[in-house]
Amino acid sequence: MVAVQHEKTGKVRILEAARTLFDSHGFHQTSMAELATAAQVSVGQIYRLFKGKEDIIEALVTDDADQWCGEMAEIRVKLDSGALTIERTFEELLLHTIDEKDEALSFDILAESFRNPAVSDTIGAMCERFRAFIRYFACAANPRLSGETLDAAEDMTLACLFGLGHRSLSRPILDAASTARLTARMIVAALRAGH
Amino acid sequence: MVAVQHEKTGKVRILEAARTLFDSHGFHQTSMAELATAAQVSVGQIYRLFKGKEDIIEALVTDDADQWCGEMAEIRVKLDSGALTIERTFEELLLHTIDEKDEALSFDILAESFRNPAVSDTIGAMCERFRAFIRYFACAANPRLSGETLDAAEDMTLACLFGLGHRSLSRPILDAASTARLTARMIVAALRAGH
Repeated sequence: MVAVQHEKTGKVRILEAARTLFDSHGFHQTSMAELATAAQVSVGQIYRLFKGKEDIIEALVTDDADQWCGEMAEIRVKLDSGALTIERTFEELLLHTIDEKDEALSFDILAESFRNPAVSDTIGAMCERFRAFIRYFACAANPRLSGETLDAAEDMTLACLFGLGHRSLSRPILDAASTARLTARMIVAALRAGH
Repeated sequence: MVAVQHEKTGKVRILEAARTLFDSHGFHQTSMAELATAAQVSVGQIYRLFKGKEDIIEALVTDDADQWCGEMAEIRVKLDSGALTIERTFEELLLHTIDEKDEALSFDILAESFRNPAVSDTIGAMCERFRAFIRYFACAANPRLSGETLDAAEDMTLACLFGLGHRSLSRPILDAASTARLTARMIVAALRAGH
């Protein structure tokens, strides 16, 4: 029991240190020795818990996806109960997405997904989970969506969330709250136009 | 004259080799010696033409931005002359964006922009140019857009183009032509909803 707790704490420390180091320096530029020092574990312990860096990346991506899916599930409950209108639902989704953290790390991982099939599969699986939620929200905005139009609506909404999540790149003028409020209304209008 | 021509050819070869190598291995993982060999120039010649890797990145980003702005300018002429409806205008924009090439390189550059102010400025300047076109197209879809609503419309459209440009990550079902056609209609509806 004590051994398991110790292992868990080591794992959490490794993932936290990996997130910080990979984000600031890039994961290719971070050695396992640097990661071990930052996480206060031995290199051997890292390799006992993870097969290698891509295994650590998978854990980081899965943690982020779990968190985001948990947030989307909560928003879905509020929509279903009538506590949120469909416009407010998208506003909430956007508020959780806009101005993402760890952007350098995210882009490193996305670049790696084109060079490494294991990372590509991790990203593909994550998007699969996101798509199920987005499909649900799109149909709530417009129950007539189906077939190709629903596929396109899903792609467009996913693109908007992804793009607005990384909007800092393009040096936007509007603050996050105004952007979420105004673009939510536009996204709902877009979804209602697809039929 | 001959010297200038030779220099130009060397520069083009360096940029072509850099694009290929940086995309397949990452620019941090590519040495100047590897780049020189692939471009059939000396390392000294690379440093005579470029201050360093970030200078090469800037040239690659600027080339891509010039090309994309040239394409948007042509589309704008067709819109202004009445050769394209506003829906077909967005469809054309999307057809030029969807399924981008060199995605690994793009994401490497975006990651670097969070770690390197010079690269961030290059990306910021590129987006500034894109925004001018997008603002024009958004106002063509809905002349009543202004102030915050226009800012939000610009952000949303930019996000859609960026996200759909990188849609391959999320393993979409629809082909590029159908996605462009269907999402163009939705984007125009979104822009018309903002006022």
